[in-house]
Amino acid sequence: MAGSRMKLELSKVVQGRCRLGQLKEIGRMGQHSLDIPGCLLYTHLGSVPHLTQDTLHTLSSLPTATQVTLSNIAEHQEVLDEFKGGFKTFAGLHDTVLYCSLHDSAAHSPTGHTTNKTVSVWGSGGRTELTVAKFMALQRTVQPDWYQAMADGETWQTGTSRKRVRKSVDRSLAHLDECLMVHQKSQELDGVSVFGVVEGGDILEERLRSARETAKRPVAGFCLDGFQTGAMDQALRSQLIAAVTEELPEDKPRLLQGVGRPDEVLACVEAGVDLFEGFFPFQATERGCALCFRFDVTPDPESAVADEERHAAGETQPNGDLNCDDQTHMTRFEMDLKDKRHQDDFRPLVEGCGCYCCRNHQRAYVHHLLVTNELLAGVLLMIHNTSHYHSFFRAVRDALANDKMDLLRRRVLGTVKE
Amino acid sequence: MAGSRMKLELSKVVQGRCRLGQLKEIGRMGQHSLDIPGCLLYTHLGSVPHLTQDTLHTLSSLPTATQVTLSNIAEHQEVLDEFKGGFKTFAGLHDTVLYCSLHDSAAHSPTGHTTNKTVSVWGSGGRTELTVAKFMALQRTVQPDWYQAMADGETWQTGTSRKRVRKSVDRSLAHLDECLMVHQKSQELDGVSVFGVVEGGDILEERLRSARETAKRPVAGFCLDGFQTGAMDQALRSQLIAAVTEELPEDKPRLLQGVGRPDEVLACVEAGVDLFEGFFPFQATERGCALCFRFDVTPDPESAVADEERHAAGETQPNGDLNCDDQTHMTRFEMDLKDKRHQDDFRPLVEGCGCYCCRNHQRAYVHHLLVTNELLAGVLLMIHNTSHYHSFFRAVRDALANDKMDLLRRRVLGTVKE
Repeated sequence: MAGSRMKLELSKVVQGRCRLGQLKEIGRMGQHSLDIPGCLLYTHLGSVPHLTQDTLHTLSSLPTATQVTLSNIAEHQEVLDEFKGGFKTFAGLHDTVLYCSLHDSAAHSPTGHTTNKTVSVWGSGGRTELTVAKFMALQRTVQPDWYQAMADGETWQTGTSRKRVRKSVDRSLAHLDECLMVHQKSQELDGVSVFGVVEGGDILEERLRSARETAKRPVAGFCLDGFQTGAMDQALRSQLIAAVTEELPEDKPRLLQGVGRPDEVLACVEAGVDLFEGFFPFQATERGCALCFRFDVTPDPESAVADEERHAAGETQPNGDLNCDDQTHMTRFEMDLKDKRHQDDFRPLVEGCGCYCCRNHQRAYVHHLLVTNELLAGVLLMIHNTSHYHSFFRAVRDALANDKMDLLRRRVLGTVKE
Repeated sequence: MAGSRMKLELSKVVQGRCRLGQLKEIGRMGQHSLDIPGCLLYTHLGSVPHLTQDTLHTLSSLPTATQVTLSNIAEHQEVLDEFKGGFKTFAGLHDTVLYCSLHDSAAHSPTGHTTNKTVSVWGSGGRTELTVAKFMALQRTVQPDWYQAMADGETWQTGTSRKRVRKSVDRSLAHLDECLMVHQKSQELDGVSVFGVVEGGDILEERLRSARETAKRPVAGFCLDGFQTGAMDQALRSQLIAAVTEELPEDKPRLLQGVGRPDEVLACVEAGVDLFEGFFPFQATERGCALCFRFDVTPDPESAVADEERHAAGETQPNGDLNCDDQTHMTRFEMDLKDKRHQDDFRPLVEGCGCYCCRNHQRAYVHHLLVTNELLAGVLLMIHNTSHYHSFFRAVRDALANDKMDLLRRRVLGTVKE
């Protein structure tokens, strides 16, 4: 099997679906593990935007797996071929598991360029059209520990026809078979894991067919594609994911693409998702916002009582942006530091946060950096947002372990630190 | 005297002009010293562009004095007033000497807004007009250790009339007297140093008058204004500076504004300048370039012989951009990492450089970050360029101490690492 080394150990399954555990022996040398539910480290060309590897590694709670996307890398194949050492060495990455996906979930890719035999990815230099042969040549060059098979994922727009959805499932299965065939013949990819991609848009039968057929192939795990924020509301997403994961083997991980909002993450964990992409903190940073949602489930007794009271009074109902379709818009899980009310706010971004930014700077300073377009603003926000988001995932695992998911959900949905 | 604490100790004077020494007891508490010839740390709003304080302090050879400019700060006076703690605390600066200048030498300021009683500074929000009263109120709010007095410096354009130059000298002296009067009455500014500003454009008599008159005032040192790169060629600049420093007391430091190119720095040191602004590495970073000029004067014997031979053969003559007037253009002291020839260049930016970027990354990777507009590119370049530039200043002091200025000049002018 491609990537037979990856092993999933579940320590707990709540309500038959929601899983806590550890993905073991990941990486070509089998030297790493990744806690689930978990999140990958989002990068551009191997770097977390704005941060050096050294700055990054001052953060705690960082995931052991780093995501790069072919859309960023494809246009550099020649140089990487010449370099020979693989992408990890090229990008000067610390010891990490490298996961290579097809598209960047934080970037908008134009649609309409998919054919029976090809998919297209978009980098800074424009479009690169990939056949399976070219896709696999790229994987041999990049030398990831783990990659997503080529797939036709253009079914997320509302109103995509049933025929088009069926075609995307068929094509993705054909691509997967071809990828696996090349993979097994490539000695360079020995020990590398392949994830099959579950497509099917918003059509339940196609989702089930895609899941069942993909599960028959010798894959190490599954990517759930076409569920991204904006493509459908959370109720439908939860329902489809629950139905899909029902068809998937329990001992293999499921990675959801394109979903990063904390409320959606929680709902998807409860529907059976194990892994998420980490682009959300980057999006918040780019809009000048600091993540500030709460995820503490062991607060001091006094505020806990107050929270319970608010909850009882129905004040924790989400209002506003829960169905916001535009990923570039601010969510209620963050504060807009460009806002004038922060200009004389001398508190840290989040009280009690231990990140470099919160230990050293106040909201007023970051506000001034933002309004004067200072380059340090992005650096400081990215430090905080990355730290905050990955700490949230640790809180999700802790809550699952200690049966506090209800409390965590209320905390995340109901209160935002101010 | 305003800022009586600052003490200049000269350990060597070469050819009657070129000074090596230490500026002692700088900072309001008199706790710091600064080696001369030296360079201030360039910042925007207290931050080195792209870098956190922590990243910055991984560099060696950093100066103990940080420069901020009123043009960045003026529009934030209200918030700083409310904050009360002064700018150093607001910007979360480490222990440093804060020097506050009027304009940012790396930014172009529109001219034509100076009056008898006011000068204008330009921040991201537009123009702020400063009277001496407002200027001094700002200094009380910023609480620097050391600042430049208000001055009318609009005489650097070629063809400025003798009458206009004379007016600028008169106005600057009047502003200085007014600043000193307010300063001496302000208890908040006790122990803070004031530098008088020498103006006079390219007219020798006015330069001499400005120097003599400013030297009569109780200032801690002198800013030499209107000599910036692009305003005049180096021969004239050297001649005027040598004439000016002749008129200035030997025991007070001279800070040259607007000059940062290594060749010009060397010539100005030899004309009697002690201190420079540090904007040059930032400009190189913003144009996607890495500083790569050589300043090693104790190379291995073999390459030294080769250099001597090249020198003897007349190959070290500068050619090309020495009189380049446009500060945004690349100089021959740097390499353009956006250039395609670096796309498969797997060497560090500068062989043997110990900075974080050179220890961890190759030219090819930084090239790829630049062409794909990755935010890390600026971070990595700023680390290298800041490190390289401040190491150059250390090399200047070492060369002065060891009578190797000739060798250093040949190295800087003649050879660029490739």
